Amino acid sequence: MKVKDIASPKNSLLQKIRRLDNSSDRRELGLFLVEGRKLIGEALSKNVELVDVIVSKSFFDQEIDRLALDIDTVTIVQDKIFNTLCTTDSPCGILATAKAHKNTLSEVLKRENGIVVFGECIQDPGNLGTIIRTALAFEASGLILSRGSVDHLSPKVVRASMGAVFSLPILVEQEIENCLKQLKAHDSLIIALDAKASQTFDFVRREGRVVYLFGNEGQGLSAPALSLADCVVSIPINEASESLNVAVAMGIVLYHSKHCFESGGDRSR
Amino acid sequence: MKVKDIASPKNSLLQKIRRLDNSSDRRELGLFLVEGRKLIGEALSKNVELVDVIVSKSFFDQEIDRLALDIDTVTIVQDKIFNTLCTTDSPCGILATAKAHKNTLSEVLKRENGIVVFGECIQDPGNLGTIIRTALAFEASGLILSRGSVDHLSPKVVRASMGAVFSLPILVEQEIENCLKQLKAHDSLIIALDAKASQTFDFVRREGRVVYLFGNEGQGLSAPALSLADCVVSIPINEASESLNVAVAMGIVLYHSKHCFESGGDRSR
Repeated sequence: MKVKDIASPKNSLLQKIRRLDNSSDRRELGLFLVEGRKLIGEALSKNVELVDVIVSKSFFDQEIDRLALDIDTVTIVQDKIFNTLCTTDSPCGILATAKAHKNTLSEVLKRENGIVVFGECIQDPGNLGTIIRTALAFEASGLILSRGSVDHLSPKVVRASMGAVFSLPILVEQEIENCLKQLKAHDSLIIALDAKASQTFDFVRREGRVVYLFGNEGQGLSAPALSLADCVVSIPINEASESLNVAVAMGIVLYHSKHCFESGGDRSR
Repeated sequence: MKVKDIASPKNSLLQKIRRLDNSSDRRELGLFLVEGRKLIGEALSKNVELVDVIVSKSFFDQEIDRLALDIDTVTIVQDKIFNTLCTTDSPCGILATAKAHKNTLSEVLKRENGIVVFGECIQDPGNLGTIIRTALAFEASGLILSRGSVDHLSPKVVRASMGAVFSLPILVEQEIENCLKQLKAHDSLIIALDAKASQTFDFVRREGRVVYLFGNEGQGLSAPALSLADCVVSIPINEASESLNVAVAMGIVLYHSKHCFESGGDRSR
């Protein structure tokens, strides 16, 4: 392993890393941040291309021999400087820049009978990370995000996804009407989740590819999204509750959907 | 409505409000913060006792006539000072201090065949808020939190709960062994969720009261919690995924549990 040292906080590599906390800079540079040993290990195991690996001086002194990751070159910076690079409250000792990979619609639709999740204007990075983690856990074939959603490569999303963002095909910045029309042309059943719908989600019989639409945390789905759906369904909840958190709703629907597909039928009432 | 004005940022009421961002101060004062018109409305509708209501000058000028909430007295502060009181990124214009209510075990266990959620050392305020919101949505009879969990009255938890924290009976600071023994003495079936368990949660037949145990985000459940459970179960997920987010896992289990209870039988395979 090659080792480099950086002394100046104004070094261009450090300036580049600081820019990766900003979504338009991430897009411009085609890079994103991966923080912490565990996430970096996940990224490497999923063949994510790491461009730079930076460690704090104390991490290098105490941990580098036990790192057990296939890394060519590390750059060491003083702890005080390193801590200004981290986006977490408790500095992680090691971080990397990674190349962003752009997924296509055909990657998201790879499996013919797959479940696809479509998020419209998801705003909260924690929610989006959890949606990605949950989609992978229930073997969704991919995730589509509309324009106006939070960036799936923001540090908070990467963390909340627990590394699932490295594996799940994710198509971003989609114009909703155009994309839903394309999905219909690919023989997909479009099911919109809406807390106000009277039909509950477990009544829908499913065959072939299903796309579940989930809306923004505050506003739900837009009128165009609802009008293009083949059906609009809800998860039955207590009348006094307005709605479920979007990631929780999505977990319930995906668990149910996956296990109905697998058992070949509908287990609902 | 009586109206008071505060000009000094060192005013004792403002100092008290600033302390409510800290959990030990909240405990000492027996108060917590409720921010924003929607949450304050929720609190009032659930008979939460509001002690002080503070609005920004511009909120007072533009919104107070349309507030439509039953509030005796409001205190106005300059926008610049008001914004230092808010714990949110975008200031909400109105906030209140509310009296904390302590729930007892018998309130949590009120319904004989109820579902109880037990969280051990839940750390993330967003997760805890979502757990509270989800528990109310699926009509759990209450939530129990072990010692070492994040404070359920922290501003972030209150917000993420979408006001469900005002309705759901919540028993806090419980010593896990002692509390689980008490629950068993109350004829409860204790089901622990553990991502490594081979038995899946939908195989368990349930009658009477059920307590679902969920562990810390990173560590899962402790050995004492696992050993006191009547059974240890998992939610089946993709082998490549380590686990689900705790609030998502809890949503899946509660949805399933509630609908099995209601239909009077087990809908699992």
